[in-house]
Amino acid sequence: MKIAVDAMGGDYAPEEVVLGAIEAVKAYKKYDVVLVGDAKEIRRVMTEYGTTESDRLSIVHAGEVIEMDEHPAQAIRKKKDASIVVATRLVKEGVCDAVVAPGSTGAAVTAALLGLGRIKGIERPCIATPIPSKKGVSILLDSGANSDSKPKHLVQAAIMGSHYAQHIFGIKEPNIGLLNIGAEASKGNELAQTTYPMLEQTKTISFYGNVEGRDITEGIVDVVVCDGFVGNIILKFGEGIALLIMQLVKDSIRNGGLLAKLGAMAVLPAFRHLRKRLDFTEYGGAPLLGIDGSFIICHGSSKAKTIRHAVRVAGELVEEDVVGHIRASIEEEEGQHNDCES
Amino acid sequence: MKIAVDAMGGDYAPEEVVLGAIEAVKAYKKYDVVLVGDAKEIRRVMTEYGTTESDRLSIVHAGEVIEMDEHPAQAIRKKKDASIVVATRLVKEGVCDAVVAPGSTGAAVTAALLGLGRIKGIERPCIATPIPSKKGVSILLDSGANSDSKPKHLVQAAIMGSHYAQHIFGIKEPNIGLLNIGAEASKGNELAQTTYPMLEQTKTISFYGNVEGRDITEGIVDVVVCDGFVGNIILKFGEGIALLIMQLVKDSIRNGGLLAKLGAMAVLPAFRHLRKRLDFTEYGGAPLLGIDGSFIICHGSSKAKTIRHAVRVAGELVEEDVVGHIRASIEEEEGQHNDCES
Repeated sequence: MKIAVDAMGGDYAPEEVVLGAIEAVKAYKKYDVVLVGDAKEIRRVMTEYGTTESDRLSIVHAGEVIEMDEHPAQAIRKKKDASIVVATRLVKEGVCDAVVAPGSTGAAVTAALLGLGRIKGIERPCIATPIPSKKGVSILLDSGANSDSKPKHLVQAAIMGSHYAQHIFGIKEPNIGLLNIGAEASKGNELAQTTYPMLEQTKTISFYGNVEGRDITEGIVDVVVCDGFVGNIILKFGEGIALLIMQLVKDSIRNGGLLAKLGAMAVLPAFRHLRKRLDFTEYGGAPLLGIDGSFIICHGSSKAKTIRHAVRVAGELVEEDVVGHIRASIEEEEGQHNDCES
Repeated sequence: MKIAVDAMGGDYAPEEVVLGAIEAVKAYKKYDVVLVGDAKEIRRVMTEYGTTESDRLSIVHAGEVIEMDEHPAQAIRKKKDASIVVATRLVKEGVCDAVVAPGSTGAAVTAALLGLGRIKGIERPCIATPIPSKKGVSILLDSGANSDSKPKHLVQAAIMGSHYAQHIFGIKEPNIGLLNIGAEASKGNELAQTTYPMLEQTKTISFYGNVEGRDITEGIVDVVVCDGFVGNIILKFGEGIALLIMQLVKDSIRNGGLLAKLGAMAVLPAFRHLRKRLDFTEYGGAPLLGIDGSFIICHGSSKAKTIRHAVRVAGELVEEDVVGHIRASIEEEEGQHNDCES
């Protein structure tokens, strides 16, 4: 299987992206990587790390780059030879099987929509992010592809998240929660109130009901559905809280004298474990679900480890045919819907 | 000054509420407390703690209670002798100066609206919550009074939050951030996009621009303005992350052997400090701003410490005349607005 990686995307490109790709082909024998971007630059980094091109790690040249300060949709339309556009085209043409795109979320979403299109019946693709919980992981979606979701978008997000949890995280019958400010069906804003009965009537998912912000990390449900505006803010706030905690602990240790320093060294393994659980990047990027193809978006600050994991998640998406499962459920739901109307 | 405390509100009423009131009159000599609720019950708890009624700690009987499972707005309208309704009436009649209300947010908001009304010009009251940040505290509002805010509500929240930061937290010229998913004015959902230019034109505040979820704990701004639906979810998610971290650390220490246990004891002071900073209740409830009176809402799970702090915050709200400052700013903004139209 061949994964196209946008080697020019993100704050640490191409160095960290190329390094992540080198690590990925070593770690996962069944996935080959095609690095897309400035061939000369990519070759320079590969040489730096003592590697050359091979069947398993090849290069496709792309002469343009989408900069972080460009308007993503306009830039994607204009720059036909941008690395992310070329990477997406490789999948459309059947040369590669999936895309890994570090960097601007807006650019990635636009490139995916224009290059691969949506699964038939899906109105909006959305980003699914695994969040650590007391029971393991909860999948949050939409975590930022859309900023004004409609009830139908949330219902489709629930269907997509259900398949992602099932086929990638091995959860047999994932239960789905609607993110809200109270348990009762009548709670929340207009969007939540309208979406609740629609989720109840969705046959292809197992709807739990409303969940609150606290329930996400409690692991009450496997999949949490919300508007992309809310999802994005939550994820970043979670990052902020984790950073604040690290800072406070470091401060206290610094000001704590010898005993506290020794103590800190003794509990360090606990913190490492903790940080690993809280490190969203550990899970390797987030899939853009609803696109008619396998597409992984990585944070702009992604380093080699994230890229390596993203290659694995991209490969698994293809192997498990998550796109096919989503397509089948959407067809089933739309069929039921049409039956009701006739 | 007299603070009316709803002794029957919250999960630990009346015990913890009465204990908190006893502690408050001891700690703050200038604030007297009037406990409102079932007089027999309150007296029983006071006796338990070795206290009797006095000028500084008195009782006003109220024969009814709003239960957590009742529809708040309906229950408040029906139960004229509910403790929270009577407590609010004491302020309206000038017997007391402020209300402290632990328990259901919905019931508290309805009681305040019906009993005291809004400040002239304010369309929606909102809840302001201090959140710990790297620089101390950021005020988040609305944290749950409304679930479908309009742009004007966010502008008024900004004005109210600015006065709260200024007069209660002593921040001279508080800067206000609009919670969004990106820095540019064009980012975000329709609400955020419409609100941004309106905040730019608001004369009585110092508008910083958009802030992201991560920036709340970074302490980039003093006041963060958002829709009540988003604010409530964020607060509860933050609580969840903090609980998850405590859990993970405890697990690791439990499984970590003798050295880790000793180490944990050494860094325990750091954790205590940390938990104190993250404990939203430490700050003593959240004011319901925009009401024509001083009104503090406390979490349903409030214990004595929260009640004690809430009495102090309620007293400070009155002393600093936060209501008067908000009224003046709203008049000024509305005046400007009218000038423009004429």
